[in-house]
Amino acid sequence: MILPPSHIIRLRLDILCLTLTLCILSFSCKEKAITDTKDEVKTEVTSQNPTLSLSISEASEIKKLLNTNEVLKASFEEQKTKADKAIANGIEVPIPQDPGGGYSHEKHKRNYGEMYAAGIAYMITGDVKYSEFVTNMLLAYATLYPTLPLHPKRKENHPAGKLFWQGLNESVWLVNSIQAYSMVNSSISAENKKIIEDNVFKKVVEFISVDSKKTFNKIHNHGTWAVAGVGMTGYVLKDQDMVDRALYGSNKDKKTGFLKQIDMLFSPEGYYSEGPYYQRYAMMPFMLFGQAIQRNQPDLKIFEYRDQLLGKAVTTVLQLTDENGAFFPFNDALKEKNYLTSELIFASNIAFAYYKDSSLLPITYEHHKVSISGAGLSVAKALQNFDAKEYEKKPLLITDGKDGNDGGLALLRMPNLQNNEKLTSVFKFASQGMGHGHFDRLSLFLYDGKQEILQDYGAARFLNVESKQGGRYLPENKTWAKQTIAHNTVTVDETSQFNANVKASSKISPQLLFSNLRDEKIQIVSAKEENAYEDVAMQRTIALIKGNNSEQPPFVLDVYRIASDKKHQYDLNFMYQGHLMETNFGYTKESILSPLGTKNGYQHLWKLAEGKSDTNLATFTWLNKNRFYSISSLISKDSKMVFSLLGANDPEFNLRNDASYMLRENDKKDHVFVNVVEPHGNFDPKLESVQNPHSSVKHIQLLFSDEFYTVVKVMFANGENYTLTIVNQEHDPHKKHTITIDDQEFQWTGNYNLKTN
Amino acid sequence: MILPPSHIIRLRLDILCLTLTLCILSFSCKEKAITDTKDEVKTEVTSQNPTLSLSISEASEIKKLLNTNEVLKASFEEQKTKADKAIANGIEVPIPQDPGGGYSHEKHKRNYGEMYAAGIAYMITGDVKYSEFVTNMLLAYATLYPTLPLHPKRKENHPAGKLFWQGLNESVWLVNSIQAYSMVNSSISAENKKIIEDNVFKKVVEFISVDSKKTFNKIHNHGTWAVAGVGMTGYVLKDQDMVDRALYGSNKDKKTGFLKQIDMLFSPEGYYSEGPYYQRYAMMPFMLFGQAIQRNQPDLKIFEYRDQLLGKAVTTVLQLTDENGAFFPFNDALKEKNYLTSELIFASNIAFAYYKDSSLLPITYEHHKVSISGAGLSVAKALQNFDAKEYEKKPLLITDGKDGNDGGLALLRMPNLQNNEKLTSVFKFASQGMGHGHFDRLSLFLYDGKQEILQDYGAARFLNVESKQGGRYLPENKTWAKQTIAHNTVTVDETSQFNANVKASSKISPQLLFSNLRDEKIQIVSAKEENAYEDVAMQRTIALIKGNNSEQPPFVLDVYRIASDKKHQYDLNFMYQGHLMETNFGYTKESILSPLGTKNGYQHLWKLAEGKSDTNLATFTWLNKNRFYSISSLISKDSKMVFSLLGANDPEFNLRNDASYMLRENDKKDHVFVNVVEPHGNFDPKLESVQNPHSSVKHIQLLFSDEFYTVVKVMFANGENYTLTIVNQEHDPHKKHTITIDDQEFQWTGNYNLKTN
Repeated sequence: MILPPSHIIRLRLDILCLTLTLCILSFSCKEKAITDTKDEVKTEVTSQNPTLSLSISEASEIKKLLNTNEVLKASFEEQKTKADKAIANGIEVPIPQDPGGGYSHEKHKRNYGEMYAAGIAYMITGDVKYSEFVTNMLLAYATLYPTLPLHPKRKENHPAGKLFWQGLNESVWLVNSIQAYSMVNSSISAENKKIIEDNVFKKVVEFISVDSKKTFNKIHNHGTWAVAGVGMTGYVLKDQDMVDRALYGSNKDKKTGFLKQIDMLFSPEGYYSEGPYYQRYAMMPFMLFGQAIQRNQPDLKIFEYRDQLLGKAVTTVLQLTDENGAFFPFNDALKEKNYLTSELIFASNIAFAYYKDSSLLPITYEHHKVSISGAGLSVAKALQNFDAKEYEKKPLLITDGKDGNDGGLALLRMPNLQNNEKLTSVFKFASQGMGHGHFDRLSLFLYDGKQEILQDYGAARFLNVESKQGGRYLPENKTWAKQTIAHNTVTVDETSQFNANVKASSKISPQLLFSNLRDEKIQIVSAKEENAYEDVAMQRTIALIKGNNSEQPPFVLDVYRIASDKKHQYDLNFMYQGHLMETNFGYTKESILSPLGTKNGYQHLWKLAEGKSDTNLATFTWLNKNRFYSISSLISKDSKMVFSLLGANDPEFNLRNDASYMLRENDKKDHVFVNVVEPHGNFDPKLESVQNPHSSVKHIQLLFSDEFYTVVKVMFANGENYTLTIVNQEHDPHKKHTITIDDQEFQWTGNYNLKTN
Repeated sequence: MILPPSHIIRLRLDILCLTLTLCILSFSCKEKAITDTKDEVKTEVTSQNPTLSLSISEASEIKKLLNTNEVLKASFEEQKTKADKAIANGIEVPIPQDPGGGYSHEKHKRNYGEMYAAGIAYMITGDVKYSEFVTNMLLAYATLYPTLPLHPKRKENHPAGKLFWQGLNESVWLVNSIQAYSMVNSSISAENKKIIEDNVFKKVVEFISVDSKKTFNKIHNHGTWAVAGVGMTGYVLKDQDMVDRALYGSNKDKKTGFLKQIDMLFSPEGYYSEGPYYQRYAMMPFMLFGQAIQRNQPDLKIFEYRDQLLGKAVTTVLQLTDENGAFFPFNDALKEKNYLTSELIFASNIAFAYYKDSSLLPITYEHHKVSISGAGLSVAKALQNFDAKEYEKKPLLITDGKDGNDGGLALLRMPNLQNNEKLTSVFKFASQGMGHGHFDRLSLFLYDGKQEILQDYGAARFLNVESKQGGRYLPENKTWAKQTIAHNTVTVDETSQFNANVKASSKISPQLLFSNLRDEKIQIVSAKEENAYEDVAMQRTIALIKGNNSEQPPFVLDVYRIASDKKHQYDLNFMYQGHLMETNFGYTKESILSPLGTKNGYQHLWKLAEGKSDTNLATFTWLNKNRFYSISSLISKDSKMVFSLLGANDPEFNLRNDASYMLRENDKKDHVFVNVVEPHGNFDPKLESVQNPHSSVKHIQLLFSDEFYTVVKVMFANGENYTLTIVNQEHDPHKKHTITIDDQEFQWTGNYNLKTN
């Protein structure tokens, strides 16, 4: 937008006055200013009230450390360069007109980032050109904002913004802009302050907290951004009413608001029910507002709240990453996102500053960056004496639900001595996770080191890519990515869990039955889901088992028990990553490709081939990068092995052409899928050598199966046998069990038993 | 195999004698031996004649440097560890029975590697356990080898081996084993030497050079391995007849043999006509035998031969790599292969030692390893004062054919300031490249930094993976990978060049018309192919053009001119890597997939969609990793844009599911394809930012086209225009040209002219 004439005149006068003042200042400082860069006009920032993230004394300490502390220097330089570039480019506050990815959208996003950077540059250098930049931009917003209707490109059924097509962006704008304002407001004239506060901040707050009250009071990350922006604005504008509404909800009855969000959105371990991709995003307002509360209302002891929940939440989201640091792609998630994002720089810095948790330092070290804030300062100081090491990721059971009773997640992690990597098997038996949740109960993910072996598709979305529907979730996100068949779990009768109805699935969660992740030989988790399909009860037990000798990598034993009174079709799908090497069964490839089904995601799979076998073991081996993987499955002669390729009914090339391997059982009431997923051997194109390209699993037996016990036996080619007994009811780690199978008595204590040879 | 009783007795006696001798030695040396590791029995290696790669004095210098020279130490330790492990595991020389990848095959390969390692360990440590290991293994081979028939798993129409299914492996076995023997033979009893030389080396040489005379005299890499093994054996056995046959061919008439191979197999720049993947492999025997010749017949001045051809060949193969160091996948090539392979450690070490070419040091540095040889020693010493830097890859024109008249390759390389990477466009207009050649004339490859953007499929093969037909070339290598449609070039009438007949295509090559890779603004190459299709003449001009301003990345302008008296279908295919983002034309996706054609590779492509347009510009944009790419094409309303996916008629899942985009022109006599391939913008999932996701090309015009000149104009959205004039006949860099188009006169000197705006 172009500034109206009255503004331009005022600006010119301001600049004239300033120039005169500065000439004098610069003249009088001439002798002293040798160490300062020329052409910069500096004042001392002497008052700031209140502080959101960076106090005057912290800024002054940062300034002192800039020459000796590299990460601080680099981080500050980045902000300063950004601010300098922004000043050089001039101020532009366009009329909102484009959706995500479009010009006006991106420009308003850049604007708040640049104001924030200029605020920091001002706090550290004291150069008024930075505070003027923020002031002038906010004045431009002051002219524009009050005139704005709802955004022309707003989406139906989505809370709209004014500057942005969705209200969420408006809150993010506020969180950033109010921080910028808080850093420069001591240098702004009373008159301009009033204009800015009345016409920008109060108006935005009103829009977010009153006009958009429904979102403001939502127990949801959109609500968190809203209350964080409003609450922080309350502190800066010294409006306790704003703060209280942010903390306790519009009615200040504590039924909504920030504290209620902390209560409701996290499990006791700090798992956020939308999943880590959204948790990463949500942690930023949670931690930034937390920090502002701590600085302005320390009596609230926000970082102690709910048994230090905010700290736990940061640790949990960091643990929910693969060996590349990328978040496990639960629910709607973009797989490219990892813990190096700016949200987690803020969050991990604040967590370190308030909890003094040095286990976070490897992450902050990897960031190569800190936030320029009090929290960033403490990290930067700690990093000076820090020797680089890897962030420790542990086998972990994480419950879901505010009381920890809504299922959860198991991260099974075991070193693989064969390639000095870690084999990570993730088992998801969590709650729906709200609107971004997928119908993926009892799903399995497998990683070998940095490689994805059994994948979750993630979300069908190209974030911010305009040509892909403005970067929104694509239609295939609903028709494919959310459907049960897109996940490594069982689909019953080609229908998704809960008929893909979020309301229904949000009412009830899977249940953890038992787990033990502390045994060096076996990490095991068992969970059940009895509501996803009307008359079908499912229990899946995932065990990561260490090989008996050093030659043998760990393997996954996957026992998926299904019980029903009626006959169904059970499809256990594995979205494998890699290239098929061999099968021990015959199959026929299709010469013309048709979709595997007509709905619930099946319409997106091209059926490539179907196999059958007369033996009771199906082995499928694939190559992923330099390593082989096999799924060995207990089958019968009626089982079908189906290969498919994603991409059917995809009119706009929105889907990736990913492969899957499915075990299909027709007309079954009760059924137990028993599978071994095993990494093996290697393929070294440099040495031209291939080792152990074949599966070592020779036999799989289901020795026993009833409502009380499941007993399976896996026999390897080297003669090693593993017999796993699983307790299906009345779980108690101290209970003694005895069963007799074929005259052999099995006795053990606890919920499972692993017998080798 | 089990040693026959007579051998066991002899071995035991030997061991007894040795033990006695060593007891005495060890007793008398007790005081002096403090610095030696205990339990090792050392002698001084005092005589060795002849030397193939490592002399006694070099070994002694290496030993001295082990404590101070890290790369030498690590490289030696690797060999020693290998030898120690081999000794611990004991000797096994199995009856040959398995094909590539199978047990006996891999074991015989391991055996020669272990003998070679033990030979080195003996030279450096003097520990007789190593020489004994080599001796005993060779004695075992002496028992086995004379009894062997041709290998049971030999392939039809492929020269067979005895130890291995193919004769090539037998030659490689010899090259390695004779080196091992040359390092330990001074320590072997005369009796055992005779057994080994008579029953192993002479027999293997006889098999390779007499029984397999045809291969031995072949001007081909199989021939090179054969003559290298035989020639090196000749030096060690002091049999000049063997040496001469290796150097000058079976009849010593210089019509075949090593020197003739150097003459015939390389272009003047050292390009090996089979392509870099095979050149990498062939360089090992070329350089190892070269080194042996230099040491034993220095008068031959082998490294000076043909204007230092061997040195040029090493440099050329290193330049023929992408930014990952992987060889450009010309012809039958595995894409995983890069210059870190052991063959190139040997070759680059020898090249450095004899040519003192320090430009090779970055490569040898990246190897983190040297060969334990005189050559490796000079590299290791040079690396001590070497500061790591990148190997310099240049824009390069490399001719093909022994006289440089059989077309060639152009490597267009230009820095891309937008991402600090290099844009590399490879244009292949080389000769057939013998049996491993593909029908890919006038093909284009594009890389952006380390990313493959327009790919060549490479070979359909999983090297050494038993389940993929023993690691051999798969049937789809012939039916897909070699066919013209698998390459980024024009296929006429759905038929491959030369009807995919190697004999026909080997007779004649494409021709370079002109090139200039030295202009900062434009790198340009033009070549023609007039024999691949009976009545079709083709000329392709590839220009890599620098953007006029720093905001604009370089782009490829691709002008593909076709002339014919008859009507044809012209398919210009682009095997793009990435995900489709947008097109500026409509298309209909197929709801059932059928193959695009019935033969010549078309049967392997699933037809996904076909598009048409009423405008004369087709734009197709895709995303590869974090960057966008567009192909903008001059089209008419009759043009078809066809999307396809590889994988049809692939009964055993041998093919990758790669994507392609094709421009199809039907019923055309003359036609000019004009395409701009342009990298642009970026996609940063960390910052959630997207820049320049759309192509900047606004118009493409074919201003003029006849047999003498082609003039094209490309107009960008920012108003910049590029007009490229191409001379089609009588190429002369000094000739003046004038043409008038629409009253506008174009005047220039030389084979092309680029006019901007």
